[in-house]
Parts: sequence; C-alpha cells; structure tokens
Amino acid sequence: MSEFETINPATIKQALQQLQSHSPLIHCMTNDVVQSFTANVLLALGCSPAMVIEPEEAEQFAAIASGLLINVGTLTTDRRHAMRLAVKSANNAGKPWVLDPVAAGGLIFRTQFCHELLTLKPTAIRGNASEIMALAGINQGGRGVDSTNTSYDALSAAQSLAQSANTIVAISGEVDYVTDGIRTVAVTGGHPLMTRVVGTGCALSAVVAAYCTLSGDLLLNVASACASMKQAGKTATQKSKGTGSFIPEFLDALYLSNQ
Amino acid sequence: MSEFETINPATIKQALQQLQSHSPLIHCMTNDVVQSFTANVLLALGCSPAMVIEPEEAEQFAAIASGLLINVGTLTTDRRHAMRLAVKSANNAGKPWVLDPVAAGGLIFRTQFCHELLTLKPTAIRGNASEIMALAGINQGGRGVDSTNTSYDALSAAQSLAQSANTIVAISGEVDYVTDGIRTVAVTGGHPLMTRVVGTGCALSAVVAAYCTLSGDLLLNVASACASMKQAGKTATQKSKGTGSFIPEFLDALYLSNQ
Amino acid sequence: MSEFETINPATIKQALQQLQSHSPLIHCMTNDVVQSFTANVLLALGCSPAMVIEPEEAEQFAAIASGLLINVGTLTTDRRHAMRLAVKSANNAGKPWVLDPVAAGGLIFRTQFCHELLTLKPTAIRGNASEIMALAGINQGGRGVDSTNTSYDALSAAQSLAQSANTIVAISGEVDYVTDGIRTVAVTGGHPLMTRVVGTGCALSAVVAAYCTLSGDLLLNVASACASMKQAGKTATQKSKGTGSFIPEFLDALYLSNQ
Repeated sequence: MSEFETINPATIKQALQQLQSHSPLIHCMTNDVVQSFTANVLLALGCSPAMVIEPEEAEQFAAIASGLLINVGTLTTDRRHAMRLAVKSANNAGKPWVLDPVAAGGLIFRTQFCHELLTLKPTAIRGNASEIMALAGINQGGRGVDSTNTSYDALSAAQSLAQSANTIVAISGEVDYVTDGIRTVAVTGGHPLMTRVVGTGCALSAVVAAYCTLSGDLLLNVASACASMKQAGKTATQKSKGTGSFIPEFLDALYLSNQ
Repeated sequence: MSEFETINPATIKQALQQLQSHSPLIHCMTNDVVQSFTANVLLALGCSPAMVIEPEEAEQFAAIASGLLINVGTLTTDRRHAMRLAVKSANNAGKPWVLDPVAAGGLIFRTQFCHELLTLKPTAIRGNASEIMALAGINQGGRGVDSTNTSYDALSAAQSLAQSANTIVAISGEVDYVTDGIRTVAVTGGHPLMTRVVGTGCALSAVVAAYCTLSGDLLLNVASACASMKQAGKTATQKSKGTGSFIPEFLDALYLSNQ
Repeated sequence: MSEFETINPATIKQALQQLQSHSPLIHCMTNDVVQSFTANVLLALGCSPAMVIEPEEAEQFAAIASGLLINVGTLTTDRRHAMRLAVKSANNAGKPWVLDPVAAGGLIFRTQFCHELLTLKPTAIRGNASEIMALAGINQGGRGVDSTNTSYDALSAAQSLAQSANTIVAISGEVDYVTDGIRTVAVTGGHPLMTRVVGTGCALSAVVAAYCTLSGDLLLNVASACASMKQAGKTATQKSKGTGSFIPEFLDALYLSNQ
C-alpha cells in the first residue's frame, strides 16, 4: 500500500470549512431517481444546489453556477442535448464540471455519450469500478448500476484514463481511489450499507463537483469529498437500524460535520 | 371467505429468501414521483433497481434485466414509446413484466395505453380497485390516484380480467386479492397509514415484478410480495408517530425482514 | 408593524379543519426535485396530490382537480406546453391555480414564461423575495433558488404585483408576507433550518393551492397555509438533530396537526 497517499483529518476538515465558507452553487444535471437526495446532501453540507435542464437555461446557468454535475443515469436525447450545451458553457466560463458515468459500459447510448463527454475535458470523473473500466475502454459487461469489480481492480484503468483525459478519476468502493494518473490517494472508511441506499454515489459526484470549486490541491479536494461522505456514512450506519433510518442519519451527519 | 386461499408465513418467508438469494435486477419505468422510494424499497429487500427510460436503452435493458415494471403514473408520449419497446423486448427475452395502471379510468391518454399494454400480455397487474375495474372495462369515474371502491368491489372484475388477459391481477386495499381468474388469494394485514405515504402502491408493483422472477407458483409469489409489504407496513406503523417517520421505519422493516 | 394584519390561531385551525374535511385533489405540475416531498406534504395534511404532466392529460385533469399548482423549477419546452393547457383548463373550469416562479429573474426562459402566466391570472403566487421582485419587474440578479433579499425588501413589489395582476402574493422568508395589494398579513414563526431542506418552499406552494380551494377569506386562507407550514417547521426543528431528521419530523408534525 506504500504506493498510495492517504489524506489526513486536518486536510479533510480544512476543505470542508472552505466549502462551508464559499457555499458553491452547484448546477446538477442528474438522473430522475436521486434529484431530491442530491439536493439535500448539498444543502446539508452548506452548498446551494440547482437543477436546471432546459437546453437554453442549462447553457445560461452553467456559466453562472460555481460548478456543474453531469450524471447520465436517466439520460434521454433531450437531456443529452442540454448537457452538451451546459458542458461547453461551463468550459467557456472556466467552471469545473464532473462526470458521473452511471452504468457506462452496459448500455450503448449512454456509453457513447460518456466517451463524447471525455473529449470535453471533465475536471473530475466519479464512478464505480465497472463504470471507470468501461470509460477506459475495458468492457466488463456490468449489469447496470452494480459493480462486480472492486475499486482496486479498476485502479490501473483509472490511472490511464486520468492521464489520457487529463482529469481526476475517483473510483468508489470499499476503498475509494482518487488519482490524477500519477498520484493516487486511497480513502478508507464508509460502510457497505451505503450501497443499499439509492443515490449515495450520485450525491458524492455532486459533492465532488462542489469540492472542485475550491482552491488548493484538486486531487486532495476530490479525495476530501470522498472522505467526508465516507465519514458521514460510517456515522450514520452506527446510528441506523437499517437502510431507512440511514437516510436521515446520513444527512444529519453531513449537516453536523459542517457546524 | 371459504372461496379464498390464504398464504402461510412459511411460504412468504421462502419466497423472501429466494428473492434475497437471487437479487433480481428490476428495470423500473415508473412515474416521476416515486423513483427514489421505489429504488430504496427494492434495495432494502436485496434487489437491484435500475431506471432506464431512453427508448433505445430501455429496449436494450429490458432484455438484460430480470424483470420489468411499467407504471403509467406520469406517462408522456416519449415515455409511452420507450415503454412499448421495453415491453416487447422483455417479451422477446422471456422476462416477466408488471403493469401498474395508475389512475386508469380517469384519464383517457393513459387508459388507452393501458388497454394497449393488456394485449402485450403482462405477467401481472397491480392496482387499486378503481384502476382494476377500469382495465376490466367497468368505469367508476375514479378521480385519480384514489380508489373510492374497496378491493372486494373489484374482485369479479379482477377475475374476469385475469382470465381474459391470461395474467395475475393483484388488487390493493384493506385486503389485497391476488387472482389468476380461477384461484384467488386474500392477503390481510397492513395499515391505512400506508395510503397516506406516496409510493407504497407503486413500490409494491416493483416488488411484484421482482417476485415474478422467482421460480415456483406465480400466484403465491405475487401474493407473497403483497404480504411482505403489508407486514412491513404494519411494523412501521406501530413504530411511527405519523407519515414522516413511517418512511424510514418502513424501509427498515423491509431491510430487517431480509436479514 | 401596525400596517400589517396578523392571523390568529383560531383562524389557522379552522382553515386546517376545513382542508381536512374537503380533502382537495391538487394537480401538481412541479419540478423534478420535489415531487415526492410535495406529495407527502399534501398527504400528511389530508389532501390528495396527483402529478399529471402529459399535455392532453394535464388539460383534462386540471378541470377535474380541485386546484392546480404550476412550479417552473425544472421547466422544459414540453412542460411549458402542458402547463399552458392546464392553466387555461383550470380557468375555464373555475378552479384556482397557484404560480411558484422558482428562480424567476435569473433565467430568461422561465422568467418569460412566468410573465406570460401572469396574464392568465393566477389565484395566488408564492415565492421568495428575489422571485417576487423579478415578477414585479425589479431584477435583483438572484443567483437562482436562493434569495439574497429579505421578504420585507420585496413587500412593496409584492403589493404592486398583487394589484396589477389581481392576485394574492405570498413572499416567504423569516416573516412571510401575504398581500392582495391592499391588505397585508405578516406570518411569523418557522426556522432557518427549513431553508436547508429541499422543497419546503415548493411544497408550501402546493399547500397554498390546496387552501385556495377553501371557502372564506382567500387572503387569510393563503396566510393560514403559510402559518401551518411555519408551525410544523418550528415543531420539527425542535425535534431534529439536523436536516435529515427534520424531514420525517416535519411530515409527522403536519400529519399530527391534522388529527
């Protein structure tokens, strides 16, 4: 494990404090399933979420917002069009944007769109092992939103992808790996219960977009986003009876981490 | 009541264990209101949900998934097109699919589509009394998502519908009736509080789709789905102060039923 | 403060009891983020929500429902078309409808549509200070869903708007002001935590639509809607650890206010 950096609690805390003081406005173009949870996660952390999807509005708003999230979970042709305009607008305005390639690899339409988006230079990519391997051109035939690979299995793919696309790649799993292709940070913590609640990964991608708006070391900022979400997940699991009580406990933990 | 079968706890438990060990992947094409809750219900039970709605993707994914849910709650012309492709794809791949005819009868556009879907042979149909009566051609003029009839009022309509469409029909109510037109299972339990939380019926339809993927007696599998949800509803109600705390308690009860 | 009316607890309670006995059916055309929360708020209060968005259906349903909500939060061209039909249908049927001009002012597409909707005579408008000022033609350049102004800052704009559009305007804030342009009711209570949970304002607009269906003094009915939501928010905050536990506590408080 000596090849990986770790991230220390002081760095995580500093990033969180910077997040809180800046309160970035995050333009979320995300899937239909996780809209409310994503907004509540960002709000709990002190950020401002806004979901804007009409093409003309998305183009206008991406330049106003602090950062942009593109999540292809319930992609449609209309949504794809709006996302293209938003990404180009964010790029023109010098705003960071994050790609969450939900279920890339398994489904042709979204996989092709994710590859197109790669050419538009995302600031960061956050996905599970199967999704990252698919983006890197290694098709493992994942059956959808699940990953049948561990995050470590996808590490070399993530490193290649980070270098070729000049981006930060975060692979979620029991250990999260965050890499720019040269440096790699390993983030431990969390709990498997998080995978039994819809939207924890998708919301993390929105939080990554928020952390990409901060100053400082981008790699450590993205790793801090992963670490803060893992900490809240662990706290929430300890206080939960099951997946139902996990949800309010998780939002409470994020909210209280911010006080 | 001697005309109805009942379902014993051992059968319900066996079906739940089979569900857990198989972890079916359920393709949910459902309405905008219940996406997150439906996903969390399936996850709590150990299933994998995936919401895929773009026509090309929906067609591709319906053949990959274990089972398909069609819920017409916020139907649009685009969604209708994608649903047609998904249903035909599921049929070609021999995968079960379930129809939830939300508010059929009251609204012309969706009622016509539900009648069209009937010709594509759903594995099961799950609705309230008004919806089932509307599908069977008896228009009671329901005002939307509410049912002003008891489930018993719709029983003969359900039996006719099950025979003519060669399907299983589940009517939700204070007593759920599940029928193939010849045999009818009565499922008791639950609590009226469940009707004051959005999505309990819609999520049941997704769970029915999951249970339709199991081996064994299809009628008893669908009745087991209804019974497990009623049990969790009763447990959650006992632990709740109101409709707000019901939601996490309900998901917890489903999650713990599965441990 | 002598220029403002206040609303007494007996009036608030009477309006709530009338709401409960009538159980209005509210047609919600609202944004993708708050669908489930809005439905659960209405259900907790004893109302029936229904989200119907296909143009033909929306037109048909707006005439059947007791009242209509138009929320432009995730407006699209298709949704705009369906909203126009629904509003005209509600007007023809003599049903009240409420406009929630989410982020009006900041985004051109929706701002133009909100101005168009003003000509169709909403029964009430519910928004934050920035949104109301934008509708009144005072552009403060809000950055989206946030309001950088206090509700008091927007009061004269709200009064002008209420008079010119012949409507009731409710401005949300630490104090809510509800005005018909001549009389103005100040509603205190609530808690800032409510602004850290997505959908409390959007759900209030749906509740305002429900209260607009009641008989009696329309201005006091709208103020009662605001007061009941503020009371539940205060109760929920006292029982919450953070924004996560606030959500079930808020719904419970609404549900229990109704028993």
